[in-house]
Amino acid sequence: MNTSRKPGGHAATTSAADREVVVALDVGGSGMKCALVRRDGTVTHTEHHLTGAARGPAAVIDTILDVAEALADTARREGLAPVALGLAVPGVIDEAQGVAIWSANIGFRDVPLRKLAAARLGMPAALGHDVRVGGLAEARLGAGRSARHVLFVAIGTGIAAAHVIDGAAAAGAHGAAGELGHVLVRPGGPRCGCGRDGCLEAVASASAVARRYAELASTAPDAPEASAAEVATRAAAGDPLAQQVWTDAVEALADGLATGQALFDVEAVVLGGGLARAGAQLLDPLRAALHDRMTFHREPRLVPAALGAEAGCLGAALLALDDLEKP
Amino acid sequence: MNTSRKPGGHAATTSAADREVVVALDVGGSGMKCALVRRDGTVTHTEHHLTGAARGPAAVIDTILDVAEALADTARREGLAPVALGLAVPGVIDEAQGVAIWSANIGFRDVPLRKLAAARLGMPAALGHDVRVGGLAEARLGAGRSARHVLFVAIGTGIAAAHVIDGAAAAGAHGAAGELGHVLVRPGGPRCGCGRDGCLEAVASASAVARRYAELASTAPDAPEASAAEVATRAAAGDPLAQQVWTDAVEALADGLATGQALFDVEAVVLGGGLARAGAQLLDPLRAALHDRMTFHREPRLVPAALGAEAGCLGAALLALDDLEKP
Repeated sequence: MNTSRKPGGHAATTSAADREVVVALDVGGSGMKCALVRRDGTVTHTEHHLTGAARGPAAVIDTILDVAEALADTARREGLAPVALGLAVPGVIDEAQGVAIWSANIGFRDVPLRKLAAARLGMPAALGHDVRVGGLAEARLGAGRSARHVLFVAIGTGIAAAHVIDGAAAAGAHGAAGELGHVLVRPGGPRCGCGRDGCLEAVASASAVARRYAELASTAPDAPEASAAEVATRAAAGDPLAQQVWTDAVEALADGLATGQALFDVEAVVLGGGLARAGAQLLDPLRAALHDRMTFHREPRLVPAALGAEAGCLGAALLALDDLEKP
Repeated sequence: MNTSRKPGGHAATTSAADREVVVALDVGGSGMKCALVRRDGTVTHTEHHLTGAARGPAAVIDTILDVAEALADTARREGLAPVALGLAVPGVIDEAQGVAIWSANIGFRDVPLRKLAAARLGMPAALGHDVRVGGLAEARLGAGRSARHVLFVAIGTGIAAAHVIDGAAAAGAHGAAGELGHVLVRPGGPRCGCGRDGCLEAVASASAVARRYAELASTAPDAPEASAAEVATRAAAGDPLAQQVWTDAVEALADGLATGQALFDVEAVVLGGGLARAGAQLLDPLRAALHDRMTFHREPRLVPAALGAEAGCLGAALLALDDLEKP
């Protein structure tokens, strides 16, 4: 940046910086979202690949490295200069060491992904947790960009959160912070995938909403199998079973968010993930239920995520750019 | 510190630094703990004063300033050089602005304590939240000193926590972070002072334990009024009502700590406050109950606080010293 102040050097330097991109991959259980991201957060290219998790973790690692290398080549062919790689994966991630410690849906166990990627691509790499980098992107570039203290909450198959202060997401001592889905909200309630009863995720995730509606509705003659989005739509249309399941989920989410606010005291809660696409059907009653629970707390703004499916790639790119700027 | 490297200057400089002390006050609802604290954390002098909260906030502010000024004079008479003032108060504290925003038991409302104290004493002042500075001290000098990620939990009349990462306590966007006492653990449970039902504080604080035991035992002929410590002792002696109340409190605390660990992912949980003085009667069953709740979590070490009643003064002093070192 300093060089841009040199007389006559401004245009050339800006142009070189404009050509710099980060290769970004957001690896999920079923698919990989991939992008080339400029320093200013502009996405110049996107791709989507299948993760193929059933092939086992070694094959997934090969695919990640192949796709990343091909993306870097694509960038170069387009006259861009790939300067770093940003990778986001789910599970327990040690961001400082660049190691995927544990990932249930991909099968990673202590995989030194950052080192592997840096060696393969010959450029600096950063490894982040999918929800934490999504939160990073929403906090810096998306719905939380005016706030210094943001809680990003992703509600999909599971529920997880990222607590972002001044643009940095807290990872915890072992890369496992932000597990809002495993906050106890209903003691003795539905069994959670983690093995405990009554976790928020067991009541209010998209899969829990669909499952609970199927359970309740199975006594009805037509035994419908509805997704969480369909449950929301049916609830809005007046289906009493759907209303019960949806209200239970909203109340449980409000309990979980109130617990989060008691501990984190943020300015803004940004809701992302599949269930958040229910929009006002979720946000309006959730905002009211959260408001009811605020006693001593300062009430946070509750807003929908703004970056959509690209948040993970943008966040992985931000993480890689942050690392480049470290002394 | 740099000057200590000058030839011949080492002894004199060290001696000057040795004479530097911070005037530290930890203001509670009933009493003020006061100390002179060296840069290395050594306490050279302690005092105790009554807060006199019933006199109203203006009188308490006067007392704080009078006591602080007298402590600075005491330091000078003893050949010490007071370099800063550290103040800890309960409630909602804006540490960045140095303002006590709200304190139920002292009656503070938007009191610019840092500015008032700095003007009166003619030296830099820092204002902190009592539990957060206690956590700061335990994390840096006490039971959490080997850990980078610490949750300090104070269990007394209420329950509050401080999340300390790398020696800094998270204050939140509005100075209200760490309210572990208001995490929901028993929906529909006992009414909390905050107005909600089933908060951790309503089941497991020292006052809740004493109150619940009194409620249960009031049907017995001798209707005992026991403190939480006495309930713990009676539980250990085989009193079934005391055992029930104590077990309920331990189970609720374990639920609250498991929620904290899911969100914060710390290495060590440091237990302080009056109830923690129950020692093994609390720690042993709580450690077992927390262990039972750890599924995906990394289990934190659960350890008793090490600094005792001086933690607040030490933390207030650390906060003031941190401010001195800021550029």
